[in-house]
Parts: sequence; C-alpha cells; structure tokens
Amino acid sequence: MEYKFSDKVSKLHASAIREILKFTADPEVISFAAGNPAPEAFPKERIAEISAELFRDDPILALQYSITEGYTPLRDFLKGWMKEKGCFHPEFDDLIITSGGQQANELSCKVLLNEGDTLLCESPSFIGSLNAFRSYNVNLVGVDMEDDGIDLEKLEAAVKANKNVKILYLIPNFQNPTGRTMSLAKRKAVYELACRYDFIILEDDPYGELRFAGTNVPTIKSLDTEGRVIYSSTFSKLISSGFRTGYVSAPAPIIQKIVVCKQVADVHSNIWAQVVSHRFMTTVDREAHFNKLRDIYREKCDLMCSYIDNGFSKKITYTKPEGGLFIWCTLPDSCDMNAFCTKAVQEYKIAVVPGNSFSIKEDDVSHSFRLNYSTPTNEQIKKGMDILARMTRDMLD
Amino acid sequence: MEYKFSDKVSKLHASAIREILKFTADPEVISFAAGNPAPEAFPKERIAEISAELFRDDPILALQYSITEGYTPLRDFLKGWMKEKGCFHPEFDDLIITSGGQQANELSCKVLLNEGDTLLCESPSFIGSLNAFRSYNVNLVGVDMEDDGIDLEKLEAAVKANKNVKILYLIPNFQNPTGRTMSLAKRKAVYELACRYDFIILEDDPYGELRFAGTNVPTIKSLDTEGRVIYSSTFSKLISSGFRTGYVSAPAPIIQKIVVCKQVADVHSNIWAQVVSHRFMTTVDREAHFNKLRDIYREKCDLMCSYIDNGFSKKITYTKPEGGLFIWCTLPDSCDMNAFCTKAVQEYKIAVVPGNSFSIKEDDVSHSFRLNYSTPTNEQIKKGMDILARMTRDMLD
Repeated sequence: MEYKFSDKVSKLHASAIREILKFTADPEVISFAAGNPAPEAFPKERIAEISAELFRDDPILALQYSITEGYTPLRDFLKGWMKEKGCFHPEFDDLIITSGGQQANELSCKVLLNEGDTLLCESPSFIGSLNAFRSYNVNLVGVDMEDDGIDLEKLEAAVKANKNVKILYLIPNFQNPTGRTMSLAKRKAVYELACRYDFIILEDDPYGELRFAGTNVPTIKSLDTEGRVIYSSTFSKLISSGFRTGYVSAPAPIIQKIVVCKQVADVHSNIWAQVVSHRFMTTVDREAHFNKLRDIYREKCDLMCSYIDNGFSKKITYTKPEGGLFIWCTLPDSCDMNAFCTKAVQEYKIAVVPGNSFSIKEDDVSHSFRLNYSTPTNEQIKKGMDILARMTRDMLD
Repeated sequence: MEYKFSDKVSKLHASAIREILKFTADPEVISFAAGNPAPEAFPKERIAEISAELFRDDPILALQYSITEGYTPLRDFLKGWMKEKGCFHPEFDDLIITSGGQQANELSCKVLLNEGDTLLCESPSFIGSLNAFRSYNVNLVGVDMEDDGIDLEKLEAAVKANKNVKILYLIPNFQNPTGRTMSLAKRKAVYELACRYDFIILEDDPYGELRFAGTNVPTIKSLDTEGRVIYSSTFSKLISSGFRTGYVSAPAPIIQKIVVCKQVADVHSNIWAQVVSHRFMTTVDREAHFNKLRDIYREKCDLMCSYIDNGFSKKITYTKPEGGLFIWCTLPDSCDMNAFCTKAVQEYKIAVVPGNSFSIKEDDVSHSFRLNYSTPTNEQIKKGMDILARMTRDMLD
C-alpha cells in the first residue's frame, strides 16, 4: 500500500553524512568523515568499576523506572558545576537531564516554535540540529559566518526580514562543522540583539571542555540576565557517547515545557548511564581527566594540520580550531567540491564530508569539506592525510 | 520575561498521575498508583554478570556512538522472535530499536499525522501515549470500550464522523488502565475496518508476555496482510524499565521515516542497554524467565483481587485481568469518584489513580479508578487493601 506521511517529515531525509559513511564500510577507506570521540578518550576502566559497584550496592536504582527530570544527584551536581561556569542562574533557571544534547535542542524547538515560525542559525551548521528543526516544519534561515562567528549585520538583517523569529541557534565553541569559535564581543552583541528583538538564544556547547589551545571565552549563557538563553551540553565527548546523557539549563518555565515533552518522548533517559555519569563526575579528578582528553585531541589536531600546512595545495584554506573535533577546509571557487569529495572516497579511498551536508538551504553553494581528527588513529591520519595532500596537489597545482 | 510557547505544547500538562505520586512521597501512604514492575522481576544478577563481561570483552561497543536503527544483533534477534510470534513480516516489515515503547508510539504519530488529523483510541487509554499524541496537536477521539475491547459500532461511527482518520491506537492485551483484553473476533474486525477505511493501526503491546491466566490471543499485527499495522513493544516489563529499550515492527517505509525522526530525537538509544538486552535474551532460558514473572504477577493480582472479592462494597465492580499490571474498579454512578480518590489518599493514606486521568477529553466523566499490584509488596497490598475495603464499605454500604 501507499503511505502518506505528515508534511513535517515527508521532505525529511536521513543525514547525508550517513551516505558518506556507507563508503567507510570498505575496510580500505580511511575515514575523516565521522565525529566520534577517540576510543582512548573513554574512561572505560573507571566506568566498569562504577557500574560493578552500582550493581553490587543498588541494582534496582539502575533498573527501575525513574523520573523524567533525571537522576536528582546528577541534576544537583550539574546545577553546581554549571553555576561555577556561569551557565546556571539559580534565581531563574532550572536544569534537567536529556537523552544527549540532541534531545535538548530538538525539544527546545518543539516547545517554542509553531510550523512556519523562524529559527535562525549559523550557516553552515550541525546537520543533526538542522534536521531536528526541519522536522517541525519551521522557517530555517542561515546567517553567514566570519572567522570570529556569525556575521552581525547579516544577523540583524535576517531578524528584520523574517516573521516570528523565535530562536537563534548557535554553537559558539569550536563550531561543527567549521571549528570556529565566536569572539566575546560577538557573544555580547548577539545577546543584545536577542534582547532588542525579543528572541531566545539556543546555545549548543558539546565541545566547550575540549579547548586545547587559546583562552577560554565566556558562554552566552553566562551573559544572560533576562532569562533568554537555553544552554545545552552533553557527556558524549567527556564520558561516553553511547550513554546518551546530556543536559539543558534554561529559564524554569521553558524547562517545565521541555519536561512535559520529554515525558512523552522517552519517559526518562537511561538511568544506569545517569548514575554512572554522576559517580564518575564526583569521584574522579575532573581537571586531570579533561586535560587527558585535551592532550589527545591537541596531538591529533596538530598532526592533521601539519599535513595540511606542509602537504596540501596552497590554494586550499582552512580554519585551525582551538578545540573540538573538526577542521574546515575550503577549496578555490573554481573547484567542484562535490566532485572533489566523490573522487577522494572512490579513487583515493579517503572519506571527508562535503560542505553542503551542512547547508541550510538545498541550493546553498559550498566549496568546503569537513575533516575529523578524533576518530581515526594517528597512523590513519598520517597515511590518509598524505594521500589527500597528494590529491589536492594533483588536482589544484 | 514572558515566554510564548508553541500551540502544540501550550495546553499540554504533565501527567496527572504525577500529581498523585506527590502524595506517595509521604512514607505513610501506601501507593497503588504507580505502574512500575515489581523490583524482584528484574533479573539483576544476570544483568550485572553480562555488564561485567561486556566491559571486560568489548567496552568501546558499550561507550561509543552507535547507529540510529539500533544494535544489529538485537534487531536480528527481535526480527526472528517477532516472526515466530507473527509480529514481523519479512516481506514488507522492518524493525528498529526505540527508547522505550513510548518513543515508538510518539514517533508513529509524528511521521503520519499533521496537526488536526484524527487519531482514534480506546477510551480510557494510556496517558503517556495520549499526551504524546496531544503534543502534535492532533484531533484525539476516544471510542468507548466493552469488556472484550473497543465498541465496534462506535468505532465505525467515529471513523465516519471525523476527518482524516490516520491512526487507531490500541492496547489489545491487558489494556492500561482497564486491564481488559480484546477478543480475537474484535481484533479481526478492527483490522477489517482499517482496510475498508484506509487507516493505520498502532498496536501497543508492552504487557503481552505477562499473561498469567486464560489463553493467548493472536496480535493484530499477526493478522496484517496489507502492511497497515505498527507493532510496538518493550523490554521495560521483561528485563528493565530503566534501560529505555523498546522496539517497533512496521512496514519498511514507515520505519524509514521513524528512523529519520529518531535520529533527530536522540541519535540512538543507550547502546549498553541494547547490548545487555541482546545478550540476556539470547543466553537465558526465556520461557523460564517469563514464567517467573508471570508467577510474581499472578500471585500479586490474585492477592489484590481476593480483597476486592471479600472486602469491597458489592456496589463496586471491577475487571479481573489475565495479565499485565492493572485492575480497573468502577464506583456506582452516585459516588463522586474524584472525592473518593482524594479521601483515599488524604484520610486513608492509600493512593489510587482517578479514572479521569485516562480520559480522552477533559470533560469525560469517569466513575472508575486504577489499582496497580506490581509495585507494592505483598505486605503493602494486604495492609492497603484492607484499609481501602473498609473505606468502600463505610462510604457505600
């Protein structure tokens, strides 16, 4: 029989990155297309210990239904930690656990936007969030970026040009896919725009703790005096991605609505992972653990960049990130980016993600591609980047 | 500041049961209001063993990102098991893992219904699903039930009276809240109606394996020849509720859309719980495990029913379930049900769920309340039911 789907999902497709990842099933292909944490970044011994202790001491806690808002000791820990970081204002915020940062971003859109309302975002931006927003049939409008973040003039123009602008979605730290970090001046300026034009900022910060160079920039949430910033983050890059344990700090009325929507979405997030995350965060030397992760990613990023600096055609430009997982390379305008990426995977057996996977509109033109350094081993980075460098020289020089 | 929410969530409230559960924080209150599995029903020793083995053999599998569709060995196991049970038709169905049965039901609504489209359901029905449907602003229409399931004449009338009837949502086995089981004749008849009037049946079967009396009735999915049944179930009552591991078997085009929506909802379900569930289901004597659960619930149900039979006012009628977790009691029309439930918890310290918590429309009148026997201990059942019986006699006789 023929199936008729709802308008909001009928045009929705699986992430284009998934198509690229199909090629990576070929064991000969070296993939720089993923976004997974390095396997050595997971504190697997400590997690195994904590889990064993939990099953010995309180197995029913790990197995029974729990409450939608999340495991209370984990919420209390996070409220304290986020307060220290300026990301939780006890006088007006609340904080709950979500099934990854993904759920926090999706439900923020669900509770605030009607079909047709406008959601602004950086262009390009993270495909997982873009598709979440698309799945509610909102008017998704991208605003070009500069090296230090979103273009403020174009942002204000977009606010004026679109109806019912409700949310501005931003990834200020080590943005996916560009690796760029928004300057403090711009963070202040976008917050002022939000106040002036009365919209909410959805600040997605999955990589904030993974800064391995440069100096820390305050979050937009830390500038929030009016209660108009939703701050979402996750343990995916700090403890385990497979846990699906994230969190969202936002004004209490918004959190109340997100709780109702989370209750109907999945009742609560896996409780074993919440308890393990709480015990991990409160029993390890956190800074030592984060420093270990920063060392891993700094080394991998530097290794990959050294091949770009020393081997790539000089016609390619790129952003050197100060943290996170991604490098953004841009080909000269004369080069067909899609043809380049297809040739890379089919002839050279190197998978990268074509930049238009992160486009806001289907006909946005991109000359860029995204490289990931966290998933491949150092050996794979050396071998793969050597091949890719040769390819860029053969094609462009 | 004032927050404006989307139309679909602005009228959505947290489950009324949660309000009742607040009273149960009082340690003096005996609660028959929950819906949690009995703690002794969780196979905690085997789960602890499997988890320890997993962290020893393949920790990264339990910690890294995984695919949206779910852990492939678990999907393959379920396809085989569901095929045996007639709930997976390899010629047109596909099957994926979801974050509990809740997610399967919510996403089925999201992919198929526009705002204003009609979703029919039994009246009363499971509040978690009702709120999921409400969160998409659909036209939710309840159809009265008889002892053997939904009223067929009223169902056909509702199909004719409403526009764009897309889904009929049913819990055919040991329905929540009524404990009723739909007869085979009615299952066949609703399937025929679905074919004649071209709508989809969403069959929610969380309790199917928990039959402790009577004989098994084939699922509606097992009658599906045209590919118009979505079948959802879960390990919440068989292994662990805290896992949030469910599954959905449905025609492949519907599964494809659900996968896209699941990807934007939570990327994938907690992978540790998926692997543990797979290893549990494929290494234990399943029938022996299910029989143990059936014994637990039969004993608890019989115990609770003995107090109704021997102690309750004869003016109260009830359905004796053949499985599942709930008993549905109905007061005489002259009795104010809400006043009864309030008095029960405030004066007698016994929490039950008022029947209108499961109403489809706000002004539906209910004279019933729901009792749960799975969560309280046998001692709590004895003590609490004795008090409740006395209350019914004092009030009604």
